Formats: sequence, structure tokens, C-alpha cells
Amino acid sequence: MFMIDCGEGTQLQLRRYHIGFNRIQGVFISHLHGDHCFGLIGMISTFGMLGRTAPLTIYAPAELGPLLKMQLSIFCNKLEYEVKFVAIQDTTQQRIIYEDKSITVETVPLQHRIPCCGFIFREKKGLRHIRRDMIDCYEIPISQLNLIRQGADYTTPEGEVIRNEQLTYPADEPRSYAYCSDTRFIPTLWQNVEHVTALYHDSTYNSQLQSRASLYYHSTSAQAAQVALKAGAKQLILGHFSARFDDETVLLKEAKEIFTNTVLANEGEIIRIE
Amino acid sequence: MFMIDCGEGTQLQLRRYHIGFNRIQGVFISHLHGDHCFGLIGMISTFGMLGRTAPLTIYAPAELGPLLKMQLSIFCNKLEYEVKFVAIQDTTQQRIIYEDKSITVETVPLQHRIPCCGFIFREKKGLRHIRRDMIDCYEIPISQLNLIRQGADYTTPEGEVIRNEQLTYPADEPRSYAYCSDTRFIPTLWQNVEHVTALYHDSTYNSQLQSRASLYYHSTSAQAAQVALKAGAKQLILGHFSARFDDETVLLKEAKEIFTNTVLANEGEIIRIE
Repeated sequence: MFMIDCGEGTQLQLRRYHIGFNRIQGVFISHLHGDHCFGLIGMISTFGMLGRTAPLTIYAPAELGPLLKMQLSIFCNKLEYEVKFVAIQDTTQQRIIYEDKSITVETVPLQHRIPCCGFIFREKKGLRHIRRDMIDCYEIPISQLNLIRQGADYTTPEGEVIRNEQLTYPADEPRSYAYCSDTRFIPTLWQNVEHVTALYHDSTYNSQLQSRASLYYHSTSAQAAQVALKAGAKQLILGHFSARFDDETVLLKEAKEIFTNTVLANEGEIIRIE
Repeated sequence: MFMIDCGEGTQLQLRRYHIGFNRIQGVFISHLHGDHCFGLIGMISTFGMLGRTAPLTIYAPAELGPLLKMQLSIFCNKLEYEVKFVAIQDTTQQRIIYEDKSITVETVPLQHRIPCCGFIFREKKGLRHIRRDMIDCYEIPISQLNLIRQGADYTTPEGEVIRNEQLTYPADEPRSYAYCSDTRFIPTLWQNVEHVTALYHDSTYNSQLQSRASLYYHSTSAQAAQVALKAGAKQLILGHFSARFDDETVLLKEAKEIFTNTVLANEGEIIRIE
């Protein structure tokens, strides 16, 4: 489980929504504005008091490194788990900064008032699914199943070759999630996030406030929808709404006129990416 | 207006309780545990975004200085008001660290797991109150009133001396408030806070958990009450309750058996010190 950004009070929200503290293995910080990182030291500190032992890795713009180090030395000198820091040296580059056997995470250059990047989480192509009925039919030994899931054909003791397509269903389509906040509208951003399954995009304002969006390096919901449309994303998630909107469906409506499969990100909501 | 300690989420609580951000002129930090200072940078930052121009002074153990400086340089480089830092060099000394024409603030040495001090806010003796009827009766000119409030007698144009006691009522008794959290029981603490009007004292546990209180350098409600009693305080305010108490009246009851005029500090509550 990963966390993206960590504003003040995040630890309270984790508690409110019953999210297991120990399941979070990494935190990705997009930029060093307070609403995206002031909750980090409190959360790290509380994890320690709750007896965490698993390491936690923070991926963030390099400038956070010395500050985090000082905070840890003042507030967490008896921490019983390791806090690792991975510096994002250049937020203007699209680079893989995390990889394990099932996913990669890469940075996406964004344009905000200070250095800022988004993140794309990409599943790797998984293994094919075994057709249980065919395995039983040919009495294929368990030792062969892993090879078959990887795509191998099977040769029976009698020498008959059973083609993999008969033994398996295709692997699930890998999913991907791009988080793009905070940013002003970037006409070429769709190229960086092309074909992602779900795109989260800055939607601070509506089109009436487009000049304000531009001034403060934020986006309108229409601009977010344009990125999703050109990128061929399957779903758009809008967030980072200005407090001026009592009714955020204004933003949703505007985006939906351009990109139908759009939702608003609400606090505490779980969005499944299918 | 002063703030004492500033845990994570303090800026949200200020907003919730409609407390005017600009009225706070100083923040006193007792010690560098997260629940007493993690909200500071977020609050300072938000004050800036809300257009504050009045300086804000932070009084805290010296170790906070370099951290605050680094935080301000990363997150608040365009702040339009001044954040001053006053280092408390030695939390084991009782010293006046703030003074203006109406109050003083002094540190009180406490005993916690790290250097920690409480604070006593003391009103200075005010001026005497003018008896309007007597002023009218003797037709005393306005130019004389300030001297009279300070205790001067008045001599009429005919040479008659009117004694100050006839012209004024006594000044209000100066009030004082001692904040003592977090601390283990200090048998001599009453001497440091003698005769304060209101004493706030650590009351994390009840007497059943006295050994735990001692271990973690916190106090029981009975210990808090003993300090209040020996100090001759007028009122005791209990706080910093362990989350294990669903019903904190256990703590109140225990303290009241020793010191009757005791109240529990509840979130958002206003306690008037008379």
C-alpha cells in the first residue's frame, strides 16, 4: 500500500477511515507545499509509538531530505523502524523511481509554483490464468503449472502438444493510475499519461476562473477533462477543489461535457480502478 | 492573546472554534514532543496565506530554533509578516521570558522525558477604579484622573485635600494562570506556582496507574490536586488525559476529593479565570 502526499492531519484521517498503519510501505510527496507534506512527521512519529517495525520509504523532492533528517533527530530518536528517504532530484523528468515484481512507479513532470511532479503507478503484465477443467482433463502435474501460466505449451506423456491457449485464459490487463496534482494545464501532459486506466488531475477551479487557475498554477475541470480525453484514459478523477465551491458538482458537470467517465474525489472515498 | 502549545491540527481547531487568527501574538511551546508543536508550521503558513501582517513570536526550547528556521525557509519564503523566535535556553530555571505593561510570563521547570517547562501568566497590579460620583461632586478636572487612578490624593482649589480612598475603589486583584504539562509529580512544584488563581496540571492517569505515570513522566489527578492544594490555588484545571479513559469523570472525582474547585479541560471550552 502506498500513500500519495500527506497534509496536516493525515494520521487522524487514517484513524478515522480505519486504514491499517502498518500496510503503508511508501509515501510519495509531489511537492513541498504544506497541504501535501505537513502531516508526514506526525504520521511517522505515531507509527513509531504504535510499535511499527517495517521500514517506511519517503519519495520526495530532494529539498525535503535535510528537513526530514532534522525532524527525525529531534522527534524520533528512538524510532524502532527505519525511515528511508529517496530524493527525487529532478521533477522535470519522467523516471521510474520504484519497481518491484508487480508494479513500477514513475514521476510525471508537472508545472506548479515550485518544483512538482505527479506519479504513475503501473501494474506489470501478470501471469495467464489456468483453466482448471483442462488441467484436470489432461492430468497435468502441479510442477508444470507455473510454466503454463507463463505461456508454455504442454506435452503429454504420449507426445501430444497441447497449446497454451487451450490451457489458459489471458492475463488481466495491467492497470495504471496517474496522479497529477498540483499543476496548471499542460497541453502536452496527455502524452506522459497516455492510456492510463485512471487519471487523477488538479481541478481547483471551473472555466469561469481559468485566468485565476493560470495565475496560481492550478487547472480547471475542463482542462483536466481535456487531458483525460487526449490521453485516452478510461476514468478521470477530479480533486483539489477550491474552497469557494460549496457545490462541487459544478466542476463535475463541466468535466463530464468533455470526458464522460469522470468522478469527484471525496474525502475517505474508495475508488476501485477496474 | 497567547497560545500555549500547538499540536498537529491546531489551525483546524482555531477555525472550528472561530478564534481570530490575527489576535494571537505569541505561542509558548513547553517541550518538543509532537503533540505540543507539530501544528506550528502549518499554522504559521496559513496565517501568511490569510494575509497576516502582525509579527508572531514563538517562545520555545532552543532546539526548535534551527528546525523552525529551516521550515520557514522551505515553506514560508514569501511570508508577509515576521516570525520571531525566542529561545528558552534553560527549562530548569524559573525566569520571566515576556513582559508588557499588563502582564509577565515566566517559565516553570517541569520534569518530563525531555527538557520541558510550564508557563505562568501573571497580570500586573492594575490602576484603582475612579468613583464617578465623587469626581463629579468635587468637579475634578479630567487631567487629574490618571494620577488619582495611580493612588494620588486631590487638592481642591480651596486647598482641601481629598484622600484617594474617597475617590477610588481598589484595583482588581491581579490574576495568574500556571500551565504545567507534561510533567511527573514534583513534590516542590507548589512553591513555584504558589497562590496562582488557576493551575492547569498534567492529569494523564488516575491513582491506580500511579506507577505508569511515574514511568512515563506524567501525573495522576490526585497528584495534580495535591499541587493545587499546597499551592493555595483558587482553581485546578485537569488535562492531558490518557485515551484509555472513556469516562474522564473518574479523574475529576479523584482530584475533587483532595481539591474541590477542580474542572476537566474539554476541547474547545472557554474557562474564565475570575
